[in-house]
Amino acid sequence: MDFVTGISDHGDLTISRLKDKGYIGKEVKVKGAVHSIRNMGEIAFVILRRWDGLVQTVYEDNVSPFSFKELKDAETICATGILRKEGRAPGGIEILLTSVEVLSRPKEPLPLDISKWKLSASLEAKLDQRAIALRNVRERSKFKLQEGIVRAFREFLYGHGFTEIHTPKIGAKSAEGGANLFRLEYFHKPAVLQQSPQFYKQMMVGIFDRVFETGPVFRAEKHNTKRHLNEYTSLDFEMGYIENFTDIMEMEAGFLQYMVHMLDNEYKRELGLLDITLPKVNEIPYVTFSKAKELVSERYHRKIKNPYDLEPEEESLIGRFFKEAADADFVFVTHYPSKKRPFYAMDDPRDPMFTLSFDLLFHGMEITTGGQRIHDYSELCRKMRARKIESNGMQQYLDVFRYGMPPHGGLGIGLERLTMQLIGDDNVRETTLFPRDQGRLTP
Amino acid sequence: MDFVTGISDHGDLTISRLKDKGYIGKEVKVKGAVHSIRNMGEIAFVILRRWDGLVQTVYEDNVSPFSFKELKDAETICATGILRKEGRAPGGIEILLTSVEVLSRPKEPLPLDISKWKLSASLEAKLDQRAIALRNVRERSKFKLQEGIVRAFREFLYGHGFTEIHTPKIGAKSAEGGANLFRLEYFHKPAVLQQSPQFYKQMMVGIFDRVFETGPVFRAEKHNTKRHLNEYTSLDFEMGYIENFTDIMEMEAGFLQYMVHMLDNEYKRELGLLDITLPKVNEIPYVTFSKAKELVSERYHRKIKNPYDLEPEEESLIGRFFKEAADADFVFVTHYPSKKRPFYAMDDPRDPMFTLSFDLLFHGMEITTGGQRIHDYSELCRKMRARKIESNGMQQYLDVFRYGMPPHGGLGIGLERLTMQLIGDDNVRETTLFPRDQGRLTP
Repeated sequence: MDFVTGISDHGDLTISRLKDKGYIGKEVKVKGAVHSIRNMGEIAFVILRRWDGLVQTVYEDNVSPFSFKELKDAETICATGILRKEGRAPGGIEILLTSVEVLSRPKEPLPLDISKWKLSASLEAKLDQRAIALRNVRERSKFKLQEGIVRAFREFLYGHGFTEIHTPKIGAKSAEGGANLFRLEYFHKPAVLQQSPQFYKQMMVGIFDRVFETGPVFRAEKHNTKRHLNEYTSLDFEMGYIENFTDIMEMEAGFLQYMVHMLDNEYKRELGLLDITLPKVNEIPYVTFSKAKELVSERYHRKIKNPYDLEPEEESLIGRFFKEAADADFVFVTHYPSKKRPFYAMDDPRDPMFTLSFDLLFHGMEITTGGQRIHDYSELCRKMRARKIESNGMQQYLDVFRYGMPPHGGLGIGLERLTMQLIGDDNVRETTLFPRDQGRLTP
Repeated sequence: MDFVTGISDHGDLTISRLKDKGYIGKEVKVKGAVHSIRNMGEIAFVILRRWDGLVQTVYEDNVSPFSFKELKDAETICATGILRKEGRAPGGIEILLTSVEVLSRPKEPLPLDISKWKLSASLEAKLDQRAIALRNVRERSKFKLQEGIVRAFREFLYGHGFTEIHTPKIGAKSAEGGANLFRLEYFHKPAVLQQSPQFYKQMMVGIFDRVFETGPVFRAEKHNTKRHLNEYTSLDFEMGYIENFTDIMEMEAGFLQYMVHMLDNEYKRELGLLDITLPKVNEIPYVTFSKAKELVSERYHRKIKNPYDLEPEEESLIGRFFKEAADADFVFVTHYPSKKRPFYAMDDPRDPMFTLSFDLLFHGMEITTGGQRIHDYSELCRKMRARKIESNGMQQYLDVFRYGMPPHGGLGIGLERLTMQLIGDDNVRETTLFPRDQGRLTP
């Protein structure tokens, strides 16, 4: 009988292993894709692209017992050679090639010059050929950083007693924003795609006290802006036994601090490639919605058109105000008007025109909406009646409150937007792997 | 200006903190839901349910300056009292109540007796009232273990150079299994829900060499069995630069070893609650599809009806065979017939009737399908032509191969099935938070 016992070592090395001093002068083996070839006559530099960076290999006419003309861009190879120090090469090392095994060959030359430092292609071209464009080292590093954000979110919350959940994306109709739902037929029954895990995470607070989910959400909104998508990844958490809605803001601040720490420690290469200065997260100012509108109106001589709504330009100016006043990258805007928040938002007992809720702005753009939720069954029913929301189809959600729920609240963070603001990109599609908008359903 | 600087300490304690010796004899504060009340006359035991377990609090007539009759099941409270050792209480501690603050009250008594050790309710009843039924401590612990499986999957893969990705769930039509797709209208265009991240993770291998995703997949199959769902969570990875398809099996074995280790270390409480013996993962036997059919046919006197297909009963017998022969909990079945695998599966060069692919059986049930994929553009086109698959709409997928891809392969693991087999449940709905099947679209 034959057994699988674990991972085999095929002898090929990662870049961090190559940098171990012990390998200098020795024969080593690395695998990668031919990223670029620079022919200098008697020698040629063949740069390999790997998940962990670029490796310089060198072909020398009299040393390498094969013709470097056999090598072409975008081939994948297993390169063998002698490792040596070279200050001008990426990572300070290079491999003098003694043999090359070609693992695969492309059919045609690449349509984009991905080996350039900055990929010169329009956003449309990059998205049309997404899986090629992202072979550019700077382009792909955006998504490595995005990984770091999600990792930090989960690790931080695991450490604070949260349980990860996986809730269904297909559901019966929901009471939240009926117009913005994608509809489908589910075995001859009408169904929708969830626009948020809101009701599920609230239900799960009755079970695990603190829960989170990282998954796709779907919005059938007919936006066509630089910051909206019709499908995105939402980082959601919901926590019970809060004493105040500010507990939620504090948890988010804790996450951002953890995230910055993790990126700084484990994603230094990507931060460097994209020339990113990490944002300040130790002290995040907060201000009420009404006060923020006033401050911005006064400072920037801007008339308040609607006291119950925040225009994108006002958000941007609030960001600017707190950057100028406190060198702040983030600002919490609290106490949003009740009529702009969903029925389950808890109104402020001191002024029920406003809610115990908040948005978090990052460089003047909303990346989070959160707040305390109503946990009392009668109060929830009262607010639904006042808003003329049908309880039809929501019985299982309401039952959770009928049978007792702790005070709780939570938030949702748009992953692609947070990544966009961290990197300083000007379109959320830049930081979305395969964006979905009104015009884009492929690749 | 006011700032949020991080998490506030409200003074309430976790169970593991309470078990620190320093708190014995001191006044402590804990929050939780009233799980059960046992009235013994002059004293009463009020068990609190928290995310981290149960805590026994004690009401004593002459000590507690309030009436315990004020307390009811399913209230959430903040309990203050003196911590003392008590061998018969959960965790060996109890709190002698000195005051109680009620945080919330249910409207009605619970419809299920969740405080029982084994919840006595049918599967249908449990699913209809999912968010109540899961307040039972054993029921919820299944999903805590599920968290551990997903954590282990991600942590193990991060540690082996994989990058996490988030691919879209709404897409244009795909060439894989057209009949099993949920269809929806996407801004007046026909769209489908992805039945797997297969094409996306392959595309991303050209960028990050090794990638993984943990997310929902959608199958419009009209199954009505104990092991099929129409939406489930798939743990997917795809890895480049493999030397053999067995590299993928080895990576999976490595994950399972990591998972067992993590569950044993960090999820001991849940393993104990559910009385789970962790499976053997150090040596996982592998056997070809054809050989497995023969072995089972001989040993259990079962006629081979179809040499190209594996019936569920045969899977179960293969599991039994290797349990009997090698005390194995898992077995890899390799070299599935080509016509039973998708077009992108790589055929075995030694016998193209079969593929370089595998399933992993856990206690006789398939929990993984994986294998090596075709990476050569011309070969992929040839196989698509032979199968009469239209390349229409697949150009962006094919382009990835046109422009060069390393040898690669990967797998998908059904999270809910793996959880079911680990726990020994007999229906995958038991280990699905909110299952979706032909009859169930809520809650």
